[in-house]
Amino acid sequence: MESSEEQKLQVRKLELSDKSKGFIELLQQLTVCDSVSDKDFEDRFRELNARAEDHRVLVIEDACSGKIVATGSVFIERKFLRNCGKVGHIEDVVVDTNARGMQLGKKIINALTDYAHSLGCYKVILDCSVENKAFYEKCGYKQKEIQMVKYFI
Amino acid sequence: MESSEEQKLQVRKLELSDKSKGFIELLQQLTVCDSVSDKDFEDRFRELNARAEDHRVLVIEDACSGKIVATGSVFIERKFLRNCGKVGHIEDVVVDTNARGMQLGKKIINALTDYAHSLGCYKVILDCSVENKAFYEKCGYKQKEIQMVKYFI
Repeated sequence: MESSEEQKLQVRKLELSDKSKGFIELLQQLTVCDSVSDKDFEDRFRELNARAEDHRVLVIEDACSGKIVATGSVFIERKFLRNCGKVGHIEDVVVDTNARGMQLGKKIINALTDYAHSLGCYKVILDCSVENKAFYEKCGYKQKEIQMVKYFI
Repeated sequence: MESSEEQKLQVRKLELSDKSKGFIELLQQLTVCDSVSDKDFEDRFRELNARAEDHRVLVIEDACSGKIVATGSVFIERKFLRNCGKVGHIEDVVVDTNARGMQLGKKIINALTDYAHSLGCYKVILDCSVENKAFYEKCGYKQKEIQMVKYFI
């Protein structure tokens, strides 16, 4: 049986109304993220919803405060490799600084990983800083390659 | 004016007929890649074609031999971060071992990078082995994070 703490911190899909529950402010804890207008948010939400199987954004809402306290997303890449295999890419994982220590990060990662697995992915990958490596190891991930980036702005 | 060497090694989109031009055999030089049936290839090709803007597979065909000698793909991730920004993810880059030394890898990377840029991505990322880091640096990429992976098989 779940504890009441767990009952009030369930993982679910992102909903349009989550913008008013601090979803963007939560992302701003992760990296550069300007305020997003309601229209831009809705447009992007609907774009992603049209690709719902390939792209899932999960959140944890604190049922007491009504605030989004954790999020992460996974999108599914379809390859020709590995007998036309699929790979899950995890992105934009963040837990509210005020909600640390409750394993919400692990809960989100596990849910994203399970989702990719349920769609038949042969692996899930993500990029992180060296500082976050130990956290992902606790989630069952291992370091493999290095990430290279080119910025246009 | 392009040299005849360049004319016979143009970058173009993957076509359904490329399966008979050694496309899968080329991928097999990269990693585990079983033979793919014509039907599975066509199904995956059409799935990707239905997502053509979000997922582009480029190839270089040697006009003399009629063989695919290089390939790479990029898919476009839509985020809420960065003012609802987009990120290009480069995957599955390989140059035929018999066609090395002609800058075909750089040609493919540049074309994939330009495609992501043209769609308004604010950055392009890729994962590679430490051994390939210098190559991607020559293409204008810089190391940033580390890649973590979880395999299901």
